[in-house]
Amino acid sequence: MINIAVLGYGTIGSGVVEVLNTNGESIRKRAGAKINIKYVLDIREFPGDPISEILVHDVNIILNDPQVKIVVEVMGGINPAYSFVKEALLKGKSVVTSNKELVAKHGAELLDIAKTRNLNFLFEASVGGGIPIIRPLNQSLTADEIVEITGILNGTTNYMLTKMSEEGIGFNEALEDAQALGYAERDPSADVDGHDACRKIAILSSLAYGMQVDFEDIYTEGIANITDVDILYAKALDARIKLFASSIREDDENVYAMVAPMMIRANHPLYSVNDVFNGIYVRGNVIGDVMFYGSGAGKLPTASAVVADVVDAAKHLNKNIWTIWSSKKLDLINIDLVKHRFLIRVNKKKEILDDIKALFGEVEELTEVVKDEFAFITPLITEREMKDKKERIPGLIGSIRIRF
Amino acid sequence: MINIAVLGYGTIGSGVVEVLNTNGESIRKRAGAKINIKYVLDIREFPGDPISEILVHDVNIILNDPQVKIVVEVMGGINPAYSFVKEALLKGKSVVTSNKELVAKHGAELLDIAKTRNLNFLFEASVGGGIPIIRPLNQSLTADEIVEITGILNGTTNYMLTKMSEEGIGFNEALEDAQALGYAERDPSADVDGHDACRKIAILSSLAYGMQVDFEDIYTEGIANITDVDILYAKALDARIKLFASSIREDDENVYAMVAPMMIRANHPLYSVNDVFNGIYVRGNVIGDVMFYGSGAGKLPTASAVVADVVDAAKHLNKNIWTIWSSKKLDLINIDLVKHRFLIRVNKKKEILDDIKALFGEVEELTEVVKDEFAFITPLITEREMKDKKERIPGLIGSIRIRF
Repeated sequence: MINIAVLGYGTIGSGVVEVLNTNGESIRKRAGAKINIKYVLDIREFPGDPISEILVHDVNIILNDPQVKIVVEVMGGINPAYSFVKEALLKGKSVVTSNKELVAKHGAELLDIAKTRNLNFLFEASVGGGIPIIRPLNQSLTADEIVEITGILNGTTNYMLTKMSEEGIGFNEALEDAQALGYAERDPSADVDGHDACRKIAILSSLAYGMQVDFEDIYTEGIANITDVDILYAKALDARIKLFASSIREDDENVYAMVAPMMIRANHPLYSVNDVFNGIYVRGNVIGDVMFYGSGAGKLPTASAVVADVVDAAKHLNKNIWTIWSSKKLDLINIDLVKHRFLIRVNKKKEILDDIKALFGEVEELTEVVKDEFAFITPLITEREMKDKKERIPGLIGSIRIRF
Repeated sequence: MINIAVLGYGTIGSGVVEVLNTNGESIRKRAGAKINIKYVLDIREFPGDPISEILVHDVNIILNDPQVKIVVEVMGGINPAYSFVKEALLKGKSVVTSNKELVAKHGAELLDIAKTRNLNFLFEASVGGGIPIIRPLNQSLTADEIVEITGILNGTTNYMLTKMSEEGIGFNEALEDAQALGYAERDPSADVDGHDACRKIAILSSLAYGMQVDFEDIYTEGIANITDVDILYAKALDARIKLFASSIREDDENVYAMVAPMMIRANHPLYSVNDVFNGIYVRGNVIGDVMFYGSGAGKLPTASAVVADVVDAAKHLNKNIWTIWSSKKLDLINIDLVKHRFLIRVNKKKEILDDIKALFGEVEELTEVVKDEFAFITPLITEREMKDKKERIPGLIGSIRIRF
C-alpha cells in the first residue's frame, strides 16, 4: 500500500478521489500496490462527504507524516502551492501536480530538487488536461530534435471560436455561452487573453528544448479582437481561426514562441480540433509529424492524468525519472524577426490597390466578402515590417495571421 | 557509454544507425550516456558502407559479448528473430524490436522473461510506426479502464483508400500506384487483406486489457472488395471508407475485436487520417476520447520509435518497466453477436422495398447514387442476423459496415 495526500478538494481534487475509487483495482495492478488516500487538505469543511474522515486543514500534518510518499497538489495558483510542494519534496515526498502556473514558473527548480533526492515531480495534467503529452515528450520523442510544437491548448477559447464559426455569433455572445456552461470564468481574461495557453506552451517548450523558457518572454495575443466578420473571411478562405500556441525552432540557435489567433486550412493537423478539445502537433527532425488530441480540461480527464502520474510516481518511488529541463534560460528570438502572411481588411474600395502594392509588393486579392470592405493577403513578411507598414495602410480595420 | 547491437541492416536497421548518428548528442543527454553501436548483424555484405567495420554474420558474437546491454531486433518475421530475441534476454540483454509478428505471437512470453530478469522488452515501433502509442497505453492511460481502441493501423491501405476517394480510381489502380511508390509489397496480401492491422490491434488490445489477445481470434476482413462504386456511395453519404482495426469492451466481460472497412463521417476523430498516416483513437472510462496521429511507417519515423525505446532501455538497465500483459488468454466474444448498421446495395429497383422491409424492418433509403441500383441502410443488427439475411436479399451486390 502506498499512502498519498491530496492538496485541494476542488473540481480536480474530487475527481482524483473519484478516479481512485472507480478504477481502484486496475490502478492497483498497474501501480504494483494499492494507492491509499491518507489525507485530503482543504480549508473548507465537507459535511456528509466521506472524505471528511481524512480531511485536514493543516498541511504540516501531511508534510510531517513519513508514511505519505506522494503528494498531489491540485490547488492551483502560486501561493501557497509553491511552498507546500517545495517543502514536500524537501521532506522526501514525490509530488504530482496539475498546476500550470506553478510548473511554468518554478518547474526547473522543483525538478532539480526532485532529481537530487531521487524523487519525482510530475505534471502531465498541467498541459492538455487528459491528453498524454508531457510523458510522450519526455520519454517517447527522445530520439528526435523537436523542431516545432503547436497546440490548441485552451479549451475555453477553442469552444468560443467553434461556436462563432458554427453559429455566426459574435465574441461576446460566445463568451456568455461559455460562461453559462462553466467553461469560462467570470473573469475570463486568463483564457481569452491567451495567458493560460502561454504558460502551457512555455512548459512544453522547456521540456522539448531542455532549457528554461520563461512565459513572460512569449509574445501573447488572445482572441478578444476576433469578430464575427473575421469568421466570415475565414469561411470565404475555406479556413478556420484557432488560437495557436507555438514554439518553433528555426535553426539550432533560434527558437521563437508565440500565442496568437491563426487562420488554418483543412490540411493542418489541428484543423479538426473543435469545441473544448485540445490538440498538440509536434514535429521532430526524424519522426516527422505527430499529433495528440483529447479533452483539454474537465474534472475526470484531468484527474485521469493526475492519477496516471501517481501510478508512475508509485512505480518509481526511489528512482528519479529523467527530464532534461535545465534551469539554463533559453533566449527566444525577438518576435519582430518572425515571418507570417497576414490577411488585411480595409474599409476602402479596390481603388487603393496601387497604394497597397507600393507597400507590400504583389498581394493576393480576395473577392468581396463584406460590402464596402477590401481584403488582401500579404506575402510572407516579418512582424517588424507588418508593424511598420500597418499605420500606412489606408483605412485599416483589422489583420490576422495566416498559416497556409 | 552503453553498447548496443542491431540485428538486421534493412530499411529500419539503417534508419536506426542514421538516427543515432544524426541526433547523437541530444540522445546522449536524454539517455544519460552515449549509445554506441558495437555490432550490426546481417547475412549480407555492405562494401563501402562505414558499418562494414562493425558488421558480423554470426549472432553468437553478439549474444556472447557481455558488453552488449541492448539488442535491437529489426529483421522482421518470426524465425530466426524469436530465437535471437529470446536468447538475448536469457543472456541478460534488454531487447527493443519493431517486429509486430514477433510481438503479437510471443509478446507475453518475452515480457515475462524480461520481467523475471530485471530487463526490458520494448516494442513501441511495432504499432503505428513513429506514433507514441505503446508507451502512452502502458504509462499514461494507467488511471483508466480502456473501453475502446480503434486504429487506422495500416498506411498502405489508408493510402489506397485515400487515392480511390480523391481520384475516383479503382482498387487495382490504387494498388499499382502504392506499389510504384514502394508503399505496398509485390505480394500485398499482408496489407490489403488486413493481416498487418490484425497483428497490431492484437498487440494494443493485449496491452489495454492486460491479457493475451490472440491475433488468430480476431475477425479480419481487408479492403480487396472495396470498389470505386463503394467510394461513390461514401461520398453521397458525406462519409469516408477506412480500414478500421477495433477492439471494444462492451462490458466487464465482453471484448470483441475486428478488422474491417468502415464508413465514417467527419465527426469521427479518425476521419481526417488520410494518405499513409496512421491514427489511433482510444476511449477510457475516465479520460474520455484521446487520439494519436502520425506517420505509421517509413524508415525514419519507425527508427525514431526504435531509438526512443533504446533510450528508455538505457535509462532502465537493471529495472523492469512494468507492463500488465499477462499470458492469460482473453476470450473474445463471438463476432456474430456484434452489432452494426450496414449499407446494402442491390441491383434492383425500389419496388423490392417491401421485401427489404420484411427482412429488416424500417430501413433508411438512399436517393439514387448509381443507375439501376438501389441502396439502403439497415437498422443496428448483429453480424449473425446480417449473415442469415444476406442470402435472402434480392439482387445483393455488396454491403459495408457503417459507424455513424
